[in-house]
Amino acid sequence: MDCSTIGKRVPQLGSLEKATGEAIYLPDIKLPGMLYGKILRSPHPHARIVHVNTEKAERLKGVKGVITAKDTPMIRFCIIPQLANKPPLAVDKVRFIGDEIAAVAAEDEDTSEEALDLIAIDYEELPAVFDPVEAMKPKAPKIHEEEHNIAAHIVREFGNIESGFKEAQYIFEDEFVLPGVTHCCLETRGCLASVSRSGRVTVWSTTQTSHTLRPRLAHVLGIPVGNVRVILARMGGGFGSRLDMDSIDPIAVFLSKKTGRPVRLINTRDEEFVSSRIRYPMTIHLKTGMRKEGTISALETRVITDNGAYNNQGTSVTGGIGTKITYLWAIPNTKLDAYVVYTNKPFGGAFRGYGNPQLTFALESQMDIIAKKLGLDPVEIRLKNVNKPNTTVASRSNISSCGLTECIREAAQIVGRGKTKEKNRGIGIACLMHTGGGTKVFFGGNTNYSDSYVKMTQGGTAEILTGACDLGQGSDTVMAQIAAEVLGLSIEDVHVISADTETTPQCLGAWASRQTYVGGNAVLRASEGVKRQLFKAAADLLEADWKDLELKDRRVSVKGLPERGVNLGELASYCYQNGIPLASRGFWDDPVSPKPDPVTGFGGSPTFAFGAQAVEVEVDRQTGQVRILKCIAAHDLGKAINPMAAEGQIEGSVLQGIGYALMEEMVWDEGVLLNPNFQDYRAPFIWDVPEMKTILIESNDPDGPFGAKGIGEAPLIPTAAAVANAIYDAVGVRVRELPITPGKILRHLRNQKE
Amino acid sequence: MDCSTIGKRVPQLGSLEKATGEAIYLPDIKLPGMLYGKILRSPHPHARIVHVNTEKAERLKGVKGVITAKDTPMIRFCIIPQLANKPPLAVDKVRFIGDEIAAVAAEDEDTSEEALDLIAIDYEELPAVFDPVEAMKPKAPKIHEEEHNIAAHIVREFGNIESGFKEAQYIFEDEFVLPGVTHCCLETRGCLASVSRSGRVTVWSTTQTSHTLRPRLAHVLGIPVGNVRVILARMGGGFGSRLDMDSIDPIAVFLSKKTGRPVRLINTRDEEFVSSRIRYPMTIHLKTGMRKEGTISALETRVITDNGAYNNQGTSVTGGIGTKITYLWAIPNTKLDAYVVYTNKPFGGAFRGYGNPQLTFALESQMDIIAKKLGLDPVEIRLKNVNKPNTTVASRSNISSCGLTECIREAAQIVGRGKTKEKNRGIGIACLMHTGGGTKVFFGGNTNYSDSYVKMTQGGTAEILTGACDLGQGSDTVMAQIAAEVLGLSIEDVHVISADTETTPQCLGAWASRQTYVGGNAVLRASEGVKRQLFKAAADLLEADWKDLELKDRRVSVKGLPERGVNLGELASYCYQNGIPLASRGFWDDPVSPKPDPVTGFGGSPTFAFGAQAVEVEVDRQTGQVRILKCIAAHDLGKAINPMAAEGQIEGSVLQGIGYALMEEMVWDEGVLLNPNFQDYRAPFIWDVPEMKTILIESNDPDGPFGAKGIGEAPLIPTAAAVANAIYDAVGVRVRELPITPGKILRHLRNQKE
Repeated sequence: MDCSTIGKRVPQLGSLEKATGEAIYLPDIKLPGMLYGKILRSPHPHARIVHVNTEKAERLKGVKGVITAKDTPMIRFCIIPQLANKPPLAVDKVRFIGDEIAAVAAEDEDTSEEALDLIAIDYEELPAVFDPVEAMKPKAPKIHEEEHNIAAHIVREFGNIESGFKEAQYIFEDEFVLPGVTHCCLETRGCLASVSRSGRVTVWSTTQTSHTLRPRLAHVLGIPVGNVRVILARMGGGFGSRLDMDSIDPIAVFLSKKTGRPVRLINTRDEEFVSSRIRYPMTIHLKTGMRKEGTISALETRVITDNGAYNNQGTSVTGGIGTKITYLWAIPNTKLDAYVVYTNKPFGGAFRGYGNPQLTFALESQMDIIAKKLGLDPVEIRLKNVNKPNTTVASRSNISSCGLTECIREAAQIVGRGKTKEKNRGIGIACLMHTGGGTKVFFGGNTNYSDSYVKMTQGGTAEILTGACDLGQGSDTVMAQIAAEVLGLSIEDVHVISADTETTPQCLGAWASRQTYVGGNAVLRASEGVKRQLFKAAADLLEADWKDLELKDRRVSVKGLPERGVNLGELASYCYQNGIPLASRGFWDDPVSPKPDPVTGFGGSPTFAFGAQAVEVEVDRQTGQVRILKCIAAHDLGKAINPMAAEGQIEGSVLQGIGYALMEEMVWDEGVLLNPNFQDYRAPFIWDVPEMKTILIESNDPDGPFGAKGIGEAPLIPTAAAVANAIYDAVGVRVRELPITPGKILRHLRNQKE
Repeated sequence: MDCSTIGKRVPQLGSLEKATGEAIYLPDIKLPGMLYGKILRSPHPHARIVHVNTEKAERLKGVKGVITAKDTPMIRFCIIPQLANKPPLAVDKVRFIGDEIAAVAAEDEDTSEEALDLIAIDYEELPAVFDPVEAMKPKAPKIHEEEHNIAAHIVREFGNIESGFKEAQYIFEDEFVLPGVTHCCLETRGCLASVSRSGRVTVWSTTQTSHTLRPRLAHVLGIPVGNVRVILARMGGGFGSRLDMDSIDPIAVFLSKKTGRPVRLINTRDEEFVSSRIRYPMTIHLKTGMRKEGTISALETRVITDNGAYNNQGTSVTGGIGTKITYLWAIPNTKLDAYVVYTNKPFGGAFRGYGNPQLTFALESQMDIIAKKLGLDPVEIRLKNVNKPNTTVASRSNISSCGLTECIREAAQIVGRGKTKEKNRGIGIACLMHTGGGTKVFFGGNTNYSDSYVKMTQGGTAEILTGACDLGQGSDTVMAQIAAEVLGLSIEDVHVISADTETTPQCLGAWASRQTYVGGNAVLRASEGVKRQLFKAAADLLEADWKDLELKDRRVSVKGLPERGVNLGELASYCYQNGIPLASRGFWDDPVSPKPDPVTGFGGSPTFAFGAQAVEVEVDRQTGQVRILKCIAAHDLGKAINPMAAEGQIEGSVLQGIGYALMEEMVWDEGVLLNPNFQDYRAPFIWDVPEMKTILIESNDPDGPFGAKGIGEAPLIPTAAAVANAIYDAVGVRVRELPITPGKILRHLRNQKE
C-alpha cells in the first residue's frame, strides 16, 4: 500500500510544546484556591492502628483539612474488583512501610509537611513477614485476618503435561529468581481533585486509563460514575505504573471534599519508590521436556509471586504466565502451578511486559542451557521451536501474523555471530512474544475495545476524539497519522483530543500494548466513516460514481483525472453548507480471541508481537563488570505506523531491559526500602546505552490498522536473557538471578575455578 | 404520550451554581499571565485616519502590546461573507462613534485605560449622515467609497400583487416608525483569547454560536479553521446580540498573538451601548388590500432600514420580511420593496424577533385600524385571516402545526373582552408567528442542522455532547430532558457538555428559536441510538425480543412483566463488560423547507410558532402615562418540554416587548448616543411587570422533538402592537411610532381635542 503518512518518521505531536516548556504537566496546573496535600504513611511494615489524633495538625495555621479513614466510606479497591482489599487510607492496620494512613491539605506544601508530624498515632506493632516462602508457612503472621497469606494458587494446564513429559527424551529443570524493580517514571505520580458544590468530581490524574479510572474512583468514593470526570494529566511516562488507581486519587478527592477547595497531591521521589506499584518479584522453576530432535514436548512452570501487602495484579500477572508459555514456542503441553503470596512489602502492579520479562528471562536462559546440553546452536534450537503465522496455540489463541523466524535470522546475522570470538566477549540471543493488541482481562474480561469519534472542520482539517491515553508513548501521534492517511491529510491537519472522560468516547486505555492496535482500529473506522461522507458529497459535486474517487493530498478527485477534483477545504465547506456535517463514530472490539480462562481470569489477545534480540558483551574477569557492546533488536510490529516512534519505544525498552539485566533491584531490609532514590537504585544512565540497531520486521497483521501491532512493551522482554546468554558465551558463567551484578559474576567465576 | 420528564417543570441545570456564585462567567476566568485589553474607539462619526502614533502608549509601564489595523491582516467580515465590509480595526476611515481603531493589552485594566489616552490620532473629519432617507440622496456623503449608500434594494413578490389589489374592495395605507433599541444583556460582551506557541488559538467568547464563530474568526485572523477553538463563555443573556462575531473577538486574539500572553477584553456598559449590534431602526409603509368580507387580498410592504455604518444582517432582517408577511395571515399576494441604507451610526444585528417585532407592530396596528374602519371586531377580523395547519403559504413554506386560532380565542377570552369598559382603560390584542425551528439563511443557506453525540456511562447515566449553545435560555436543560425521557432517566442522571468547538459536534447555534427544535431533534436521535443499543443488549440478557421491551425509571423490562427486567446501571455495566460501548451520534437537518430565496437570501423554516397576546392598559390622560394592568400571552409552542422554562421565556419576552412598546429607544444627536447607560436608556424594571398569564397551546408539531417548537423569540413580537391597540381602545389615540411615550400620547390627545 502506498501511504503518505503511515510509515513516515513523524515527530510526536506536542514536541514543540514539550521542548519549549509550554506543555502543561500536573505540577504546572494551579486552580484558584488550590491547596497542597501530603500523605502520612506507615513507618511500620505491620502494625495495628490503636489511635489517631489529628487535632494538633488541624490547628496548625494554614492547614485546611486533615482526613483519616473515618472521613471516607472505607471502600476497598482492586483492579480486579472481587479481590479488593486495599482501602485508600488504612482502616485498622498498616501492612507495609508506606501504607497510607492520613492526609493533610494546606495552603502550601511546607505547612502540609509540618502538619504530618503533628498527627499522633499509637501503633501496636505486629510480627511481619517479607519472604513469600516464609509467608506460606502455617505459623507465619497473617497479613489479612480474613484471608490466608496465599492470595491465590493458580493451576492451569493446556494439552496433557504428563503425556508431554512421556514424549520427552530429556528433561531439564532450572530455577530463576527475579527481583522487585520499579518503573522510574521521570515524573512522579499525582492527582489534582476539585469537587463542586453539587458534588461533581473532576480529577486531573497521571493515569494511563482515564476511562477505567473513572468507575474505579467513583466506586471507592461511593458516588455515581456519572459524577466523576477524569482528565489525563500529561505525564513523564507510565510503563504500567499508572494503569491501576492509586490511593492518591481518592485521597485527593476526599481532601477536596473536606476542604471545599481543589487539592493537589504529588508524590515525592521517595514516596514514588516506597509506595507505588512494582514489578512482581518471582521465583520461576521450569521443567522442560525435550524431544530427541530438539523440540519442546512439555513445559511445566512453577511460580511463586511476591504479591506484597495487598491485592492488585498479582493473580493476573502470574496467571497470565499460564497462557504466555504457549505463545512463543510451539509447545503442545503446558502447565502452570503458581502461588501468589502476601508479604509485608509494597504491592506490585502492571509493569511493561506484565510478567513476561520474568518468564522470558527464565525461558530463554534455559533455552541456551538446553541448547548447550543438546549440542545445538542457540539460533538453530529456536528456529526448530518457533510458532508460525496462522497457528492456534495450546491455549487456544490464534497467532495471525508472526515474523519471529525473520526476527531471529536478522538479529543473529547482524550481530555477527560466527566471527572469531574475542576473549571475554560473547554473543547472546533471546526471543520474545507479547500481546500486540491488548488482552481480555480486566473490566469483566470479555472485551478489549476502543470507541472514537472523528470530525472534519469546515476548513477540511480533522479532529479526533479518542479515549486512548497518550502517556508520552505517542499514541496521539499514531491516531493522527491513521486519520491523516485515511483522509488524505498531512499530520498538521489533524488535532487530537484524548483521554478526558467527559468529552472523549470510551476506551480501555493504554496497557497491554493495545493503543495502536485497538485505539488505532477505532480511529481508522471513524476516519473511514468521514471519508465515506466526503466521497458521497464529492460524487454529487463532481458528478461521478463514488467508487471512482480517490482522496489524497487534501483533494478528492476522479481516479486518473486529477483535474476533475475538489480540494478538501472546499469540499468540507460545501458539506457544511449543505447539511452534511462530517463526523463519524468508530468502534472496535476484539472479535476473535478467546474469553477469559475461568481459572486464571486471563483472556486471549487478538494479535502478538514477536522479536529477537542479540547482544554482544564484554566481561571484565577482574571486576565482574559487564559492558554491552552492541544490541541488535529485531521486532515484528506488523507495520511501523511511525518508525521513529517505534524505534524510540524499542531503544527505551532495551535500556530498561539492560537495567533489569544488570542493575535494578529494590533492596529491602525488614520491610525498609534501602534504596528509595536514584543514587542508590541504579537505573541505566545515558552512558549505559550500547551501540544499538533496531530492525523493524513488518509482518502486516491482517487485522491491525494498516497492518500494525503494538510494540510498547515487547522490546524490554528478552533483553535480560540475551544479556545472560551473552555473559555465558563470554565467560561461561550462568547467572539465574537478576540483576546480574558484578558480585554475582565474580562469585560464579570463583566457583568455576574451584 | 405518557412522559416522565418532558412537560415537567424542571429547574435549569446549573441553577445551584448560578445561585451560589460558583458558576464561572467570563470575568471570573483568570489564566496565568493574563493581560487586560482595552479598545480605542472613534470619537467621530465619520473621519479619515491620517496618522496613528502608539509610541507613548507602548512605553507606558505595564503595557505589553498595542495594536492597530497594520498588525492585522485587515480582512473584513460580515455574517454574510459576500457583504463583508467591517474590518476588526479601522483601516483608513472610521464610520461611527465607537468604531474600533486600536487596542492595548496591559497588566491591569487601569493601565490599559491610561494607555488609550496616550495613543495620538490625527483625523480628517468628514461630513456625516445619520438619516437613511438623507443618506439615499445623490449628494449625501459616501460612507463606503466603493459602494453606494444604498446597501441593498430588495424587491420580492409572491403571488401577483397587482391582481391582489384589483381583488380588494378597500385599500389601507399606513406608515410606522421603529426606533433603534438594544439587547440590554445583563453581562456585557467579552472575549478571552490565548494563542499557543504553535499558533493554536483558543477563545472563550460570550457567543451564541461557537461552531459558526469558529470559521468566521479563523477567516478574519487569516488562519485555518482547525487552528481555532471557540468555547462558549457562560453569559447573562444574548437575545441575538451574540449571534455574529464582534470585533472584540479577533482583537483579543491579535492582542494575545502580539503579547504572547492570554488577553481578556470585556465591554464596559458604555461600550456595550455604543458599539454593539442594535435592533434595526425601520420605517414600514403598509399598503393592504381588503376584500369585502374582511380578508386580505394583497399586502405591499415598503421598508427603509437604517443599516448603520457597516453591513451585518440588515439585508437578511429586511429581506426576511418578504417571507414573514406570508406566514401570519393567509395573504395570497404580497410584495416587499425595501431599502437598506448606510448611515454613520452603529450597525444593527440580530435581536430576538429578527425584524418581526418591527413588522408585527405595523401589521397588527394596521389590523386594528382596518377592523375599526370595516366595523369588524379585532378578534373576528383576525380569525377570518388566520393561517391553518398544513398550509403552504404564498412564499412556498409549509405550515405544519398551527394553533393560532386557539391562541386568539384563549387570549381574547381570558383578558375579559366584552366586559363593561372602565374609563381610560382599554384592551388590545395582537398576534404573531415566528420561526419555531431556525431558518435556512446563513452558512450557505441550504441547511439548518445540528449534530450531537450521546453516551451512557458505566453507571447508566447519560452524557450529551452538543454544539447547541446555552446562553441562559436553558437549552442544556431541554437537551437533558429529551435524553432523560428517551433513556428512562431522571434529569439528574444527565450531564450536558455544550458549545465547545473542540469537543462537541457541530451545530449552527442558538438563533432563530432553533435550539429546542433542531438541537433537540439531534439529541433525540442520538438518545434513540443509545436506547437501541441498550435494548439489543437487554434482549440478550433477558432473553426477550427487543420489540417487547420498555425503558422507564432507570430500568429496561419486558412490557407488562416489570420483574423481568434489568436496572440501567447493571445493564450499562454489562454492556461495557461485553464490548458494547453505549454511544451514538444523532444528526438532524431541515428536510422540508424551501432553499433560500435568490433575491432576499432568506430561506424557509421547518416550523412556526404562533401566538396571541391581549393586554389591558390604563392611560392617564393628564400625564400620558400608560399602565399595563394585565397581559395574557397565549402561545403555540407545539409542546412545552419544560413549562417553567417556556413561561420564563414568555414572561421575559413580554417584558422586553413592553420596553419596546413604551420606553426603549436609542437617542442619537449627530451620531452621539445620548443615553448609553441604564439611567438614561429606560428598559423595563421589575415594577414594570404587569399581571401576567401565560397559556401554553400544544399543537404537537409532527416533526418537533416530542412535538415541540421553539419559543425563544416569539413572545416579544406582538406585545408592542397589543399595547398600541389597547391604548387606542382606552383613549382613541393611535400612535404609529415606537416607543409610545407619554409625550406622544399627550400630543395625540391634544390633536384629538383640536
